[in-house]
Amino acid sequence: MAFDPQSLRFNAQGLIPAIAQQDGTGEVLMMAWMNAEAVTKTLESGRVTYWSRSRKSFWVKGETSGHVQELVEMRVDCDRDCLLLIVRQTGPACHTNRRSCFYTAVQSGEEVEILTPID
Amino acid sequence: MAFDPQSLRFNAQGLIPAIAQQDGTGEVLMMAWMNAEAVTKTLESGRVTYWSRSRKSFWVKGETSGHVQELVEMRVDCDRDCLLLIVRQTGPACHTNRRSCFYTAVQSGEEVEILTPID
Repeated sequence: MAFDPQSLRFNAQGLIPAIAQQDGTGEVLMMAWMNAEAVTKTLESGRVTYWSRSRKSFWVKGETSGHVQELVEMRVDCDRDCLLLIVRQTGPACHTNRRSCFYTAVQSGEEVEILTPID
Repeated sequence: MAFDPQSLRFNAQGLIPAIAQQDGTGEVLMMAWMNAEAVTKTLESGRVTYWSRSRKSFWVKGETSGHVQELVEMRVDCDRDCLLLIVRQTGPACHTNRRSCFYTAVQSGEEVEILTPID
């Protein structure tokens, strides 16, 4: 069946959450948002493109930093309201220069840093 | 630093997305939503508890199906507006009886099934 971005379920702002996971290692790198056009751009270009809610514009991941995400595969969940992007991440995914945005963890009630910035 | 659920950034509905990932294998199983109280319940009980947007009630994952998620670790992202839950999933995570909710993939413009239900 041909994939139609319009078959996805977007929220009231026309957005769908997209989780980026590194191919091979399975690291969960980040979660950001896409609109239908960002989904199309990502599939057509093979370069992961989000919708920046703060800047209200397309956000080609790594366009300025060089920390690009090459799309390996886009997956859809059962409710069609979340995407999983299998990617090849160049360098850190996080703007703090860490590999993953998920860099603190709750351990015995304390929040601790589990990833440090890449040199 | 003591972890305070109120330090998270919830959306206008008081919710935060939570991604469940299988400990060890790294499989991304599902994404659902939590409010501050669900975060607290999850940490206190060690049993992953979401907020069901459709039923408007707490949803102790697997309470009726037996397909529970035991929390291994809760992680927070840089913007404090998304959670990553490292879990031990019993059986399928998806209500369709598949291991993961992300069971279709876009391949050469076609959407194809990549996971079948568990017997």
